[in-house]
Amino acid sequence: MAGTDLAGKHVEILDTTLRDGAQAEGVSFSINDKFAILDSLVGIGVGDIEAGNPGSNPKDREFFAQYAQRKPNMQNTLLCAFGSTRRKGTAASQDSNLTAMLEADTPVIVVFGKVWDVEVREILRTDLAENLEIIADTVSFFRDNGKRVIFDAEHYFEAWRDNPDYTADCLRSAAKAGAESLVLCDTNGSALPDEIITCVSASVAAYPEVRIGIHCHNDCGLAVANSVLAVQAGATHVQGTFNGIGERCGNASLSAIIGNLQGKMGYRCIPEDRLRLLTPTTRRMADISNLTLPAGEPFVGTSAFSHKAGMHVDAIKKRSSTYEHIDPATIGNDRRFLISEISGRSAVLDVVRRIRPDIDKSSPVVSQVLERMKDMEHRGYQFEGAQASQDLLVCKELGVYQPFFNLEKLRISSEQPMVGEYSAYSYIKILVDGVDEVTAAEGAGPVNAMDRALKKAMEVFYPELVDLRLTDYKVRVINADATASCVRVLIETTDGQDIWTTVGVSTDVLEASWLALVDSIEYKLMLRKLQDDRQTAATGEA
Amino acid sequence: MAGTDLAGKHVEILDTTLRDGAQAEGVSFSINDKFAILDSLVGIGVGDIEAGNPGSNPKDREFFAQYAQRKPNMQNTLLCAFGSTRRKGTAASQDSNLTAMLEADTPVIVVFGKVWDVEVREILRTDLAENLEIIADTVSFFRDNGKRVIFDAEHYFEAWRDNPDYTADCLRSAAKAGAESLVLCDTNGSALPDEIITCVSASVAAYPEVRIGIHCHNDCGLAVANSVLAVQAGATHVQGTFNGIGERCGNASLSAIIGNLQGKMGYRCIPEDRLRLLTPTTRRMADISNLTLPAGEPFVGTSAFSHKAGMHVDAIKKRSSTYEHIDPATIGNDRRFLISEISGRSAVLDVVRRIRPDIDKSSPVVSQVLERMKDMEHRGYQFEGAQASQDLLVCKELGVYQPFFNLEKLRISSEQPMVGEYSAYSYIKILVDGVDEVTAAEGAGPVNAMDRALKKAMEVFYPELVDLRLTDYKVRVINADATASCVRVLIETTDGQDIWTTVGVSTDVLEASWLALVDSIEYKLMLRKLQDDRQTAATGEA
Repeated sequence: MAGTDLAGKHVEILDTTLRDGAQAEGVSFSINDKFAILDSLVGIGVGDIEAGNPGSNPKDREFFAQYAQRKPNMQNTLLCAFGSTRRKGTAASQDSNLTAMLEADTPVIVVFGKVWDVEVREILRTDLAENLEIIADTVSFFRDNGKRVIFDAEHYFEAWRDNPDYTADCLRSAAKAGAESLVLCDTNGSALPDEIITCVSASVAAYPEVRIGIHCHNDCGLAVANSVLAVQAGATHVQGTFNGIGERCGNASLSAIIGNLQGKMGYRCIPEDRLRLLTPTTRRMADISNLTLPAGEPFVGTSAFSHKAGMHVDAIKKRSSTYEHIDPATIGNDRRFLISEISGRSAVLDVVRRIRPDIDKSSPVVSQVLERMKDMEHRGYQFEGAQASQDLLVCKELGVYQPFFNLEKLRISSEQPMVGEYSAYSYIKILVDGVDEVTAAEGAGPVNAMDRALKKAMEVFYPELVDLRLTDYKVRVINADATASCVRVLIETTDGQDIWTTVGVSTDVLEASWLALVDSIEYKLMLRKLQDDRQTAATGEA
Repeated sequence: MAGTDLAGKHVEILDTTLRDGAQAEGVSFSINDKFAILDSLVGIGVGDIEAGNPGSNPKDREFFAQYAQRKPNMQNTLLCAFGSTRRKGTAASQDSNLTAMLEADTPVIVVFGKVWDVEVREILRTDLAENLEIIADTVSFFRDNGKRVIFDAEHYFEAWRDNPDYTADCLRSAAKAGAESLVLCDTNGSALPDEIITCVSASVAAYPEVRIGIHCHNDCGLAVANSVLAVQAGATHVQGTFNGIGERCGNASLSAIIGNLQGKMGYRCIPEDRLRLLTPTTRRMADISNLTLPAGEPFVGTSAFSHKAGMHVDAIKKRSSTYEHIDPATIGNDRRFLISEISGRSAVLDVVRRIRPDIDKSSPVVSQVLERMKDMEHRGYQFEGAQASQDLLVCKELGVYQPFFNLEKLRISSEQPMVGEYSAYSYIKILVDGVDEVTAAEGAGPVNAMDRALKKAMEVFYPELVDLRLTDYKVRVINADATASCVRVLIETTDGQDIWTTVGVSTDVLEASWLALVDSIEYKLMLRKLQDDRQTAATGEA
């Protein structure tokens, strides 16, 4: 709908994160979250954004009102309001749901209607003929008010299995009234690939004047495949959500669908120069939704192009197409080699060379680092997401590391019930080059108190640490035995320019946090030391 | 291979969690983990278990040695050892990899071989004719030693795209030498559905005397669909992993494949009476693998049959097939109604009725509970996984709750560096019916110390708490700002009979843990009080 280029292989993408995605377990968007998602979707250039149901949801109405005020730059993307067909026995112009949709003031309206005879009788409690009028009236009402209309045929596949003739009557009714797209919705995610192909092909043939669209759910793990097969069968409009979020098992994942259709099959879903935004956009939307994107998410996950087995790492270096189905750079993702007990020396070498580019594969330090990593991984460490801690470990094995401070004493205390703003305080004593520093800090929790006390003490000796700021803090319990089981803490730090992640493991969440905090500070100092050393060496040579 | 019933619609399932699954990022199995996984797979009745590569991995060799000693009851499941074809220029009987596979003493051998001309030349560095001999020799060697042989054609789809004739020669070579299954492996997960259908159909026609198998990876999000389509095209052997774990984006998920093929399409993959083990088996294997099964995992996730939107909850109650593609009970999963700002009163009513079965939908307490839940969810609570805290909340709104103790003072202290076994200690003072109790406890970390101190003090008044034990402890950072951001703690507790989960939210990880701990104890006491109240009421009425 967004583009006018309907020729050939263009596929219109409608993202429904803000409507169907909001149904996902654990998801709740603030108004600002919604605008941040809108911004991401406009940035990557999807055709349509389904932003909510103003008739049934006051929060969605509020969103559309704010949209009218903020007037964001939509580039070539169109905003859609979503809602059902008119109530039985009510004129379209008298139906408050429909007028709310109109008031949302979007160029496009997505109308969902019943096409399953069972539902018409049991849920709408009306007869089949009246439902055809309801559909026609609703679509006409919006067309008469200057809207473009997408018709979502709810429970299309159940409807088609039970009564294909009536289902066809419903679609025809919507098309005749002026709907420009007819979307076959697999509302409960039950459709099998052969049903998708049969229904889409038949609809494309029966309604040549309109777009045929597809809306899949992932209850059978088939949503991506079904969407791709629908497009191969002639559909030119695909609905889904970028992270695949949605009720139950989720909606069809648009990142995977675009990855397949545009990354591999030659269709055009978004502007060609935005395909490299696929990974960052999906990750940003997961962040806004406060969801952890699975590491193995097709195309865009952090593990999607990670290689672990020694054999494969060697093979990849020889010929990347052997184990990669697409060049990760085209979709904004990266190749990674993982260190682990299965991995070979080749992967470790890459890590060591980040610090000492001149190290040879046969150098004993490579085995040393590998052994040390295996030992730490055995104790619960994972360096895959904590490159800064990994670099520090390499520095320690290479002998270029020296501690930047000694901890003399750290004490953290918490009190419940909380009194005042801070529930915890920390006292610290450190020693740097024979000089000690004793200080203390309060915090909203013990980790915060400890972080503040350590930074306060260290800044006395290393003023460059003043810009350091924690940007993420993750805790994972490794053995699910009890509170005494092992805990892995990942800390993300920034100095305003770079971002790095460190890891600590302990039976004690505070000790694990402490280890990760110390690494985050020492990494920053170590990097500077290495730069200084290199400059000194360069000057010496010159 | 396991069954002799090859008639009609039987599909042999090979699980490779212990071999290909072990390649997944973050996965590392101990010997005991491996036997626990074996036990789960035998329990659900898969045909084959691919347990490791004894030629290349000493840990796998150790597993097979222990297997020979332990002699677990395999029922109708067969164990497989995995490994590559012989080295070039070496007799099969002289190849140490092959003899290690033989020594693993399994009834079945899975041989993987090259069928892609590019790889034969560039990786094996030999000519195409010699590779055909290598394949034939290797298969013959194992057949001569009384083994059944599955031949995995590595990179089958790349091979077929580049040089279909040579690929066919390779398969023919394996079949003629006595392989009973030829498996088309989509090693890098690049195959599209139409390629799967074309290749499987052609292979089924070309080699009528052997099984055709399929082995998919999920790099394009198509692994489940591709496996299902392969079976529809005639394949009768499917490889994958129960949780879909595997390198990069994972292997094909067997839980989803079995859910589709056997739950919906009439094929038989496992004994009919074991289908209801699909959900518990998948979850148990995720636990052993120390992975969090995604809530939205098709068929087996906790959200797979969860319903949130108010409209849908009403519809489901009217007609479950409307929003459920399969009866969750047949695969061992449950339907759940979620409470959230979108949900209607109907879902809240179910929760309230767990405590007071006589409450009416129009009762003001239903609105009260709904408002309170919305408010707490807004502050970061999630009751979806914490039913015990939800029940307590309902008791509070119903006015049947009274505090079981008052906290006078709680102080927790930690020290670094750690001295001795315990890094933390906690002092506590509580008041029960005007009587105070002051005590203290040490712990491996502050949460552990706090848990011990609270239990110690409470047991003085409530001896029935002595059996309580924490079985899981989860921490989730809700806003990824810094250590000062909000933290959600989930605690799972057991009394040896029941298991319940509670939740706490705070900016302070210790306060959040404290809230969840208190709920876990009060839930146990509250349940008993409700039972006592009911008995008293019943006696009064009698």
